[in-house]
Amino acid sequence: MENGKYATSYEEIKAAAARIGSFINRTPVQTCSTIDKLAGRSVFFKCETFQKTGAFKFRGACNSVFSLSDEDAKRGVVTHSSGNHAAALALAAKLRGIPAHIVVPRTTPQCKVDAVIEYGGEVHFCEPTMEAREAACAELQARTGAVLVPPYNYGPVMAGQGTIAIEFLQQVPDLDVLVVPISGGGMISGMALAAKAINPGIKVVAAEPAGSNRSPDVALAKIAGWLVPCARTETIADGLQGRMGDLTWPVVRDLVDGVVVVDEAEIVGAMRLIMERMKLVVEPSGAVGLAAVLSPGWGASAATRGCQRVGVVLCGGNLDLQTRGFWDMWLPSAVQGDQKEN
Amino acid sequence: MENGKYATSYEEIKAAAARIGSFINRTPVQTCSTIDKLAGRSVFFKCETFQKTGAFKFRGACNSVFSLSDEDAKRGVVTHSSGNHAAALALAAKLRGIPAHIVVPRTTPQCKVDAVIEYGGEVHFCEPTMEAREAACAELQARTGAVLVPPYNYGPVMAGQGTIAIEFLQQVPDLDVLVVPISGGGMISGMALAAKAINPGIKVVAAEPAGSNRSPDVALAKIAGWLVPCARTETIADGLQGRMGDLTWPVVRDLVDGVVVVDEAEIVGAMRLIMERMKLVVEPSGAVGLAAVLSPGWGASAATRGCQRVGVVLCGGNLDLQTRGFWDMWLPSAVQGDQKEN
Repeated sequence: MENGKYATSYEEIKAAAARIGSFINRTPVQTCSTIDKLAGRSVFFKCETFQKTGAFKFRGACNSVFSLSDEDAKRGVVTHSSGNHAAALALAAKLRGIPAHIVVPRTTPQCKVDAVIEYGGEVHFCEPTMEAREAACAELQARTGAVLVPPYNYGPVMAGQGTIAIEFLQQVPDLDVLVVPISGGGMISGMALAAKAINPGIKVVAAEPAGSNRSPDVALAKIAGWLVPCARTETIADGLQGRMGDLTWPVVRDLVDGVVVVDEAEIVGAMRLIMERMKLVVEPSGAVGLAAVLSPGWGASAATRGCQRVGVVLCGGNLDLQTRGFWDMWLPSAVQGDQKEN
Repeated sequence: MENGKYATSYEEIKAAAARIGSFINRTPVQTCSTIDKLAGRSVFFKCETFQKTGAFKFRGACNSVFSLSDEDAKRGVVTHSSGNHAAALALAAKLRGIPAHIVVPRTTPQCKVDAVIEYGGEVHFCEPTMEAREAACAELQARTGAVLVPPYNYGPVMAGQGTIAIEFLQQVPDLDVLVVPISGGGMISGMALAAKAINPGIKVVAAEPAGSNRSPDVALAKIAGWLVPCARTETIADGLQGRMGDLTWPVVRDLVDGVVVVDEAEIVGAMRLIMERMKLVVEPSGAVGLAAVLSPGWGASAATRGCQRVGVVLCGGNLDLQTRGFWDMWLPSAVQGDQKEN
């Protein structure tokens, strides 16, 4: 494939790896014999849960921020996000010493807002609609001159996420297939471009939640060959509710070999294995890759046939235990005591 | 200190390291900049959460099993435990191909019984009293000739746990202090013997839960100079309810430089930091070392003065999420659906 066909390229991904290398964590690869037995193959986990800010998103944000000219950079960056991209962009901007304006829907959980603030981001609240988010971003861009850094449909972000594949294939060179959770397609498009440049025979498979409303847009688009309109996926994998964009879809269309669709119970089962057996904290979205490998859909996919050495990206570890009352349940008496005293 | 003074020695710990090296995981050391800032010092975590069976106990069990002569080994091993030692001994025996008889109180949670069975242990239920447990062990020893492997008050177990210190000081040679959660004292006694042989200037500090019934027996014994009788500690750190024995206490008495006592809320706070910031699953007992470093008691202890490079053992990751209903809370509708169908 020639350079320039897509929004990023292997050359740009290699440049991204050099650019962000001193800022990111080179995350470890871990294995688990129990999971290998269950899967009937060797599964290697790239632990982006240990990436700075707790998710792979820091790579793309970092590449975007450090790709800017000094003149552009000094005006800062802006995005709208309530999730891992917001925290990642805030930290990347802090490392370059520039402002990060983060537009956050009012309905965002406080813990996520706190993370952005902790990393030095400037939070701008808006109404929880896509129109309000985009309008707030446009207003901030116009007022401050800040550069918009979208969460996935953006070349420098795709290139940054692609560095995962370079590292992974250095750590485990003979993988047969990469399994990558998909939402907007930023991670899988960068990884597919890099992986197939390094090893043209490697397969790249997307892992996608069906959602309780059965809305797996990537699987449908791959079959149809165009972006079939779909409702937002209703899933506990709240990091995977995005929709592919005009820059990520062409790469997914051309380079992704298959899509394995998983249901909600399969995601919880995978989270449970990762937390109980591997002792790694993982968010639901981060477990979707393993869910795909263990799903009946894995064997049904022609793309995975004969794949014995499987690379799975554990893409995020920002599990919100506080909202679920997890910490309080350890200290019921202490909590009651506090309530009485206060 | 001369060899033979205690139930194990640095020579025996080195021999244990060679004996078990091919069976155990050489666990990684991880750090966290947020925790360093909170602690005001550099904290290095030895992640025994990644040890086989999910806890450091596998080291001592493995050393005990592989220290046996072929003739003794073939009759098997026996212990009474409802916790990490039971699973560890079962797996160690399986690796040597010998029987492991595990006496388990009837009140033990099913998930812990399942772990023993999964590792190939033979479960023998008894009434939940120490008398019944010991009687069942004695009966099994008499009937099968199996060798008793106690959980901590036993030289080969102390030596096995001591291998943590050898590895840790290879990975981070210039630690000022080791912080080790204490229960029966098997881990800290082995680690203190090894660490002080390698670096006589290093401090060794015990981290002990006070419990809701304020029963920190180690702290009291260190002040009194004898084993002050104490009630069993009532604490969420259910792995740390043991009492020192006649083999571990002399080492704790002579080589442990200080004891930091932590309360229940401090343990939960440390668990939360480890899970939210380090993305590691840790059981309450495993978080007690960090709780000590962050506790007011840390600064109050003369043993920790001037210690800037702190080594903490994250000793276990067997957090029981199932009993707390954690997995069901992700799929309330699915669970209800199942109930309706069945």
